[in-house]
Amino acid sequence: MIEAGSAAASEGERDAIRMIAGQGLKAEICTYVRALREDIDYAADLGADSVHLVVPSSDLHIQKKLRKTRDQVLEMAFSAVTYARDHGLMVELSAEDASRADQDYLLSLFRGGVERGADRLCFCDTVGLLTPERAAGVIPPLCVAPLSIHCHNDLGFALATTVSAMRSGAGCAHTTVNGLGERAGNTAFEELVMSLEVLYGYETGIRTEEIYPLSSLVSRLTGVPLATNKAIVGEMAFTHESGIHAHGVLREPSTYEPVRPESVGRRRRIVLGKHSGSASVDAALSELNYHPDEPQKKEILKRIKSLGDEGKRVTDADLMAIAEAVMGLTCQPTLRLRQVTVVSGNTVIPTASVTLVVKGEEVTGAATGTGPVDAAIEALRRSVADVADIRLEEYHVDAIRGGTDALVDVTVRLAKDGKIITSRGARTDIIMASVEAVISGMNRLIGRE
Amino acid sequence: MIEAGSAAASEGERDAIRMIAGQGLKAEICTYVRALREDIDYAADLGADSVHLVVPSSDLHIQKKLRKTRDQVLEMAFSAVTYARDHGLMVELSAEDASRADQDYLLSLFRGGVERGADRLCFCDTVGLLTPERAAGVIPPLCVAPLSIHCHNDLGFALATTVSAMRSGAGCAHTTVNGLGERAGNTAFEELVMSLEVLYGYETGIRTEEIYPLSSLVSRLTGVPLATNKAIVGEMAFTHESGIHAHGVLREPSTYEPVRPESVGRRRRIVLGKHSGSASVDAALSELNYHPDEPQKKEILKRIKSLGDEGKRVTDADLMAIAEAVMGLTCQPTLRLRQVTVVSGNTVIPTASVTLVVKGEEVTGAATGTGPVDAAIEALRRSVADVADIRLEEYHVDAIRGGTDALVDVTVRLAKDGKIITSRGARTDIIMASVEAVISGMNRLIGRE
Repeated sequence: MIEAGSAAASEGERDAIRMIAGQGLKAEICTYVRALREDIDYAADLGADSVHLVVPSSDLHIQKKLRKTRDQVLEMAFSAVTYARDHGLMVELSAEDASRADQDYLLSLFRGGVERGADRLCFCDTVGLLTPERAAGVIPPLCVAPLSIHCHNDLGFALATTVSAMRSGAGCAHTTVNGLGERAGNTAFEELVMSLEVLYGYETGIRTEEIYPLSSLVSRLTGVPLATNKAIVGEMAFTHESGIHAHGVLREPSTYEPVRPESVGRRRRIVLGKHSGSASVDAALSELNYHPDEPQKKEILKRIKSLGDEGKRVTDADLMAIAEAVMGLTCQPTLRLRQVTVVSGNTVIPTASVTLVVKGEEVTGAATGTGPVDAAIEALRRSVADVADIRLEEYHVDAIRGGTDALVDVTVRLAKDGKIITSRGARTDIIMASVEAVISGMNRLIGRE
Repeated sequence: MIEAGSAAASEGERDAIRMIAGQGLKAEICTYVRALREDIDYAADLGADSVHLVVPSSDLHIQKKLRKTRDQVLEMAFSAVTYARDHGLMVELSAEDASRADQDYLLSLFRGGVERGADRLCFCDTVGLLTPERAAGVIPPLCVAPLSIHCHNDLGFALATTVSAMRSGAGCAHTTVNGLGERAGNTAFEELVMSLEVLYGYETGIRTEEIYPLSSLVSRLTGVPLATNKAIVGEMAFTHESGIHAHGVLREPSTYEPVRPESVGRRRRIVLGKHSGSASVDAALSELNYHPDEPQKKEILKRIKSLGDEGKRVTDADLMAIAEAVMGLTCQPTLRLRQVTVVSGNTVIPTASVTLVVKGEEVTGAATGTGPVDAAIEALRRSVADVADIRLEEYHVDAIRGGTDALVDVTVRLAKDGKIITSRGARTDIIMASVEAVISGMNRLIGRE
């Protein structure tokens, strides 16, 4: 079932519901409505299959928010159920703030709704106050028709309470991809699916390897970034830094991975930092084709930890620079920056010139771009075009907070003939930070030919 | 108790532990150690009060990771407990991967440890596989000494499992501020405290109003941003957009707030978007001193929803522009941008010139800065200095992902004589996006005199 939106919200939301309902999907298309004829008319017009019909059920919501009585709410709810059924819509009758409702009143709301044709019921834990223990007590008596559970994560219990309600008789759970939703959000789809599969032995029938692509798509389209440590889908969920953990995973993945990353469409990653141990460093070095001896390995590990101590992310380029310095390999960079100049504004096309010393020869290149950073990076690319064809695969800037003099942290992924490298630059000037990151990466890609 | 770090990790980590141990805090200062004399020697030298002594307990970890036998691990553990006690350290003997251990073996490890002087025990749910139900079963028989519970959030159950273990006899919980930790992180301190207080009726004795300042400090120092919808401490945790929710909260906060925002050091916020209703818009308009009539209010709400439909954040400046357009107030902006030119690079000082038309008169200003954005904003400030003293209170750029042609979203907070306003700019060019945001905000601050 897809709850495609709230028809009363806005014209754009209605357009979206109409398009989703018109796709001929196998899923039931539902829309959120209040107990108002106007909302239900919208739902019918837009071609929805069903309505998620929400009425307040706690005295707090009935009296303080709606300024009505319990009987008035029953009447509103029952007449809306009848009206929606008469308009050919399936009805999920949903009790808002059910966790704080008088449970006898709640039962009479549900029973009356079912008598008037409601197909399903829903228990809304609107402010996240239900616990797994309480859910196990209150859910069973309410299962007078198929029951859904709808939880909010205000106190961090949405997932556990949802699972407890399902084990107590609720046959359906409301979830959102990435746990989006008002305030602290709702039960996260990906966490519910994977915990039912892995912890509780249910077979959900969901193709779990599509979870990560789905999550990334939703994050991109909504513009809501994920916490790096979000379970299942966060950037770090399958990343190991600690030496003990990385060592274990390299010997046997299940030691520190409860779920195979591939089973949710992801890959394992081992990163280097102050908690790294020799096993991860060895693995990273041999992947980059460096083969230091034992004392050199020790020294490389020490320098990586010291970089980590400064709070730095350790990139491929950092590791290569350290390895070469320790192993006494030639450290002369292939590229050196002589000058970069950028002009930008609203009456000029962003333009950059760059002078590099490439293998001893001075090369100057220039380019325009959609902005000053784009122009500068394009000028760098052109300046080395005779030597190498380097593509910018990814450009990332951490969120900048505070003031305009804050440090800007730029990470880039560059590719050359299928070889990929990450590198970093950090300056208060976003253009210079970007140039630093790209030159550092280019040096690594070109220098190691 | 503060686990101040892992002494074996790095020199920087050891410096930090030594400093924390030397502060004379009331808290017990603990360090993580393996069952190695070298690690325990570090702990004693650094002045720690206690060690969190971790040994593997599942056959998977014992055989696959350590390549040892159960008996060898018992011997390692017991001799490390004795060694640490002999060096004046309190010992928390911690069983790694206890959720997958043979529980009889686990008990013999714990009993033997206590016989040799371990002060506390710890059950580590190393990969987040324990559930609240299983915790209620396995914890009670293990409480042969004070027991801690240490959970990981790989499947989203860290918090619920921690609470269940505490209700089953564990007297101590391991938590991290903001839920930091390997992979999906550990039980979040702020979620555990608030759920114990609000959902389970415990008095933790913690000054909860310090939670948000603490969380912000940790996020800033670690450079790990929080999810906007993180429970308790996320940016949106006390923010209401939905019309129904905002309407309820304006009448009675408890309708949609399980916790008073002030109780965790925060404030309520009502934002405008496509889900907004008339109550929130009325409240925002009267705060900004606009008093439209009913038909105008309807039109303003419609335009806000349409801006929301485009996926835009609706700032103060947006609302004011809409209100003035709808109410037929003068829309002539006080400031218009004629030109901005910025030069930057590694051999020039970032320099910007700006020409504005301020109240009909052309003014040109110039400034240098730490980078091109800093220079451009300073030039804008100087150009309007005769008319108004405007300060930049906050400058924020959302993380930039994808490529160098991605849209850059800049939000600024400007202040003038105690009046504060937020405004936004979005362009592919970070300089122009910043200039757009600042001019839009300046117009609002100067125009409404």
